[in-house]
Amino acid sequence: MSKDRLSIDPTVGELHAEAQDAGAETVWERYEAQQPQCGFGELGICCRNCFMGPCRIDPFGEGADKGICGATAGTIAARNFIRMVAGGAAAHSDHGRDVATVFLAAAKGEAPGYEIKDEGKLHQVAAQAGIEVEGRDNKDIAIELGELALSQFGQQEGEVIFTNMAPESVRARWRREGIMPRGIDREIVEIMHRTHIGVDADPENILRQGSRAALGDGWGGSMIATELQDILFGTPRPVTAEINLGVLKAENVNVVVHGHEPALSEMIVVAANDPEMLKLAKEQGAKGITLAGMCCTANEILMRHGIPVAGNFLQQELALATGVLDAMIVDVQCIMPGLTDVKDCFHTRLITTSPKAKIPRATHIQFDEHHALETAKEIVKTAVLNYKNRRSPANVPTDKT
Amino acid sequence: MSKDRLSIDPTVGELHAEAQDAGAETVWERYEAQQPQCGFGELGICCRNCFMGPCRIDPFGEGADKGICGATAGTIAARNFIRMVAGGAAAHSDHGRDVATVFLAAAKGEAPGYEIKDEGKLHQVAAQAGIEVEGRDNKDIAIELGELALSQFGQQEGEVIFTNMAPESVRARWRREGIMPRGIDREIVEIMHRTHIGVDADPENILRQGSRAALGDGWGGSMIATELQDILFGTPRPVTAEINLGVLKAENVNVVVHGHEPALSEMIVVAANDPEMLKLAKEQGAKGITLAGMCCTANEILMRHGIPVAGNFLQQELALATGVLDAMIVDVQCIMPGLTDVKDCFHTRLITTSPKAKIPRATHIQFDEHHALETAKEIVKTAVLNYKNRRSPANVPTDKT
Repeated sequence: MSKDRLSIDPTVGELHAEAQDAGAETVWERYEAQQPQCGFGELGICCRNCFMGPCRIDPFGEGADKGICGATAGTIAARNFIRMVAGGAAAHSDHGRDVATVFLAAAKGEAPGYEIKDEGKLHQVAAQAGIEVEGRDNKDIAIELGELALSQFGQQEGEVIFTNMAPESVRARWRREGIMPRGIDREIVEIMHRTHIGVDADPENILRQGSRAALGDGWGGSMIATELQDILFGTPRPVTAEINLGVLKAENVNVVVHGHEPALSEMIVVAANDPEMLKLAKEQGAKGITLAGMCCTANEILMRHGIPVAGNFLQQELALATGVLDAMIVDVQCIMPGLTDVKDCFHTRLITTSPKAKIPRATHIQFDEHHALETAKEIVKTAVLNYKNRRSPANVPTDKT
Repeated sequence: MSKDRLSIDPTVGELHAEAQDAGAETVWERYEAQQPQCGFGELGICCRNCFMGPCRIDPFGEGADKGICGATAGTIAARNFIRMVAGGAAAHSDHGRDVATVFLAAAKGEAPGYEIKDEGKLHQVAAQAGIEVEGRDNKDIAIELGELALSQFGQQEGEVIFTNMAPESVRARWRREGIMPRGIDREIVEIMHRTHIGVDADPENILRQGSRAALGDGWGGSMIATELQDILFGTPRPVTAEINLGVLKAENVNVVVHGHEPALSEMIVVAANDPEMLKLAKEQGAKGITLAGMCCTANEILMRHGIPVAGNFLQQELALATGVLDAMIVDVQCIMPGLTDVKDCFHTRLITTSPKAKIPRATHIQFDEHHALETAKEIVKTAVLNYKNRRSPANVPTDKT
């Protein structure tokens, strides 16, 4: 692929060339190897939901116009679409579930290192959820809010609580259309049921369930994640910070945290600033420790701490090609499995931390909110001790914004 | 397709010819139209989980060996496989959820027509679940059991209760391997999260979550369905009954109930034997009403009432080709959408009953456990009134067993 087509960011071209020189295959090569991509798959008219298939509809009207069960293109495309909704809603909401779990543990004093940072928002969110606030301890309010939030995932009947933040006229429409979410998980599971062999065949009815699960995520899982993170880690304000792979510093231990959940990244921020870690870094010959974020988790620590953003989803593999990235710490979502091959061409340690997301040949150091700082320090220490293993010349781009 | 290849059952060939004469396309024609089926899909090495794709691995080692994100054939196949587990576990378990809902409503006296039929099993299952049985009203026991069963779907932590029916050594292994299910829905949702872009890339770790969700279904959703159905509808005993499409009777109104949930089929049994319905059938010129089951729901009413089985999954469309099927009543699962085209060639009314499973151009009469018998009668009445609309000659096979 020509350099110009890679990205409008010139540093991408430079680092991509470094990666190629080192024999690393990146997302761009893998994209080219997949061309041409399957037209049936692109149109969403192939179905593999049961073992009579795979089936596919001929988009030119010359071949099969139905799957073996009789599903039409409309049925197949609608089913495929809402299974994508199920994947997205599950990912977002499972993040929310983990936040609620950490929040509740923190409220109970069982997650050392985490604490209520935004009391005003605690009171506001609790009141919105119908929790008595006046004259009560923050601890009691937070425990009740954490339990209520967690209950929304398993709720079987009724309405997801934070839909009460939507205008009443909108909620009335959701009820009328049968798309008011009853619980977060239930709607996702019902998508998987409805799209199974021989269940829902009516595209409109299928799409309704997609909307219901999406609302369960948006006003449930994702809303819970956002609100409780603000209470726990502080409500963000506009900050100025640097962005791009140029934020890495050749003379420092460089750590990139990549993924989604601030429960991890917030603790990595603390650990990376720990005097003990800084001392260790200096003992290894580095001047200090640079922490940068990547992809979504970058935004979490950017907006709360002004930590620089090393890059976006497509730049994750190139971070390793700088030759100075001592560890990439990942949790869940948007982590390319391709990182594991790229790391073999450089010295970077790839550290997975979630029981839900392992990568073959990566180092797994499991994160646990009950021993958060301890684990975060172990992870940062792994990065620091890897500083002396650098083997390629430093290729840190000078461009940053 | 040659007659011999259709089925070892000779009646299938006869009725298939009738269907073809009437211009109906059935599963065999649709199967042929799909040949050759996609080899990537058959091997499970195509991925459409994100919008960088579709991606596919070249099984001959000559093309792409990774998806655009870097997922290998192992990662892709494992992800596809556990999404299939998610679909199956969701379908089974959602059936269990509906049974638990009807059970609880019945226990509370809010679902007229349903009642506890097996007191011994109620006590046995309740005791297994740790519920106090001695000296208590059946009503109270049943309400507590219903609530406990329903809670298993949304449970967030701990262990699904009926895993306590497995040997302790087995449970210890499940815990050791990290596959003990915490809740029924949560494990299914976690499958959808882990298989989303950039989450779990380790095939073994991916398959573990598939096992956990499968155990959540088997010892949760499906176990709840089985146990509560037995309490509510009676524990089955071996019975003798007839089987095959020859069970339909040309001189009677013929009703086939097809799908999965006995909450519906049990009430259809009652409605089909209602004197008012029999009188109406005679007024239409029929001698009586024949009710038969098809596919899984057939087993439910066979083993509890000796109701004949009209046929299996592949025979569903051929039932219409007998020319004497006045209504096919369906709920969820295994209902071929192709039925809607076949019914256009015959006089059969196709009646959908579940809000989760509609079929374009079918008649939708929604089943509600709070007005179960009323709805069941309305459905059977629709069948009876359709008797006079028969237009093809009767082709009821004489073969039955």
